[in-house]
Amino acid sequence: MNSLEEKTLRTENIFSGKVISLQVEEVELPNGKTSKREIIKHPGAVAVIAVNDEGKIVMVEQYRKALERTIVEIPAGKLEKGEQPKVCAVRELEEETGYVCGKIEWLISFYTSPGFADELVHLYVATGLEKKEDAAQTDEDEFVNVVEVTVEEALNLIREQKIYDAKTAYAVQYLQMKKALENK
Amino acid sequence: MNSLEEKTLRTENIFSGKVISLQVEEVELPNGKTSKREIIKHPGAVAVIAVNDEGKIVMVEQYRKALERTIVEIPAGKLEKGEQPKVCAVRELEEETGYVCGKIEWLISFYTSPGFADELVHLYVATGLEKKEDAAQTDEDEFVNVVEVTVEEALNLIREQKIYDAKTAYAVQYLQMKKALENK
Repeated sequence: MNSLEEKTLRTENIFSGKVISLQVEEVELPNGKTSKREIIKHPGAVAVIAVNDEGKIVMVEQYRKALERTIVEIPAGKLEKGEQPKVCAVRELEEETGYVCGKIEWLISFYTSPGFADELVHLYVATGLEKKEDAAQTDEDEFVNVVEVTVEEALNLIREQKIYDAKTAYAVQYLQMKKALENK
Repeated sequence: MNSLEEKTLRTENIFSGKVISLQVEEVELPNGKTSKREIIKHPGAVAVIAVNDEGKIVMVEQYRKALERTIVEIPAGKLEKGEQPKVCAVRELEEETGYVCGKIEWLISFYTSPGFADELVHLYVATGLEKKEDAAQTDEDEFVNVVEVTVEEALNLIREQKIYDAKTAYAVQYLQMKKALENK
């Protein structure tokens, strides 16, 4: 079961940007042949399932240039250099939604696209939300609308393909399960 | 609510590979300022939650060069040019696990990393599995071990960080919810 590893023979650095970098690696496969792997390096990110006192999920509507469209997501953002994920989660929640939270707990971490990228997302659940009037500003090149939705409304947004990303779909399913089990 | 769009001013094509391509776009932000977006183009992919007659989930252990480690995932693969997602799902399931399925249904589609990539994953649920002795070969540069696990075992693999990607975490949570609701 240990024979799956691919050894790097040569690394070509193609691009290094402000968010991602790209390298192409020539690898030796388990059968001795060689192949090429196109790999994106990413600093990692956090996402926050923030639930307000009415049980609504706080989401942000955001234009995603990669998709050329606006989608609705849970608050998220990439880790700054050396930043602890939990600190980043609290910061991104406040920057994107204006909410500070009384309690924040790690739920799960997952790679988003292990086939070509090392982006790891740390998912947190935040409660005890309070709107901060003088909340930290969002990134200067980030524009979002805050929307607060029930689990049922979120499921409709999934059907309408306005919620359309993995971390948010995971979050909605998580809250749907929690609710269903509480109503048992 | 329509003011979030970012207009492309200039596109620089950086790289075009066998799986992904990379471009940097100069964009005009909603406030009139400009910024740069680093964007990965991907052909899209499918993933399959395949459940055998004993209720076990069929997974594959696979070395992921981007992560420099072996992880356990549900069967998945990228769309060939012009290929229908459902056809791709049936093909990838057979290629990676040797199983053909009696029934396959679309569950959800999601973008994996909308912050920088347009990769869209179509998730299917496959049942009525039958092992095919002369199953189609895997990709010539793909090496996997097939593992079949219960939902409880899958949850342990998540705790041990052997299941560590978004589509697989979603799949396990989905089956966990299904099971919990059936036992109500």
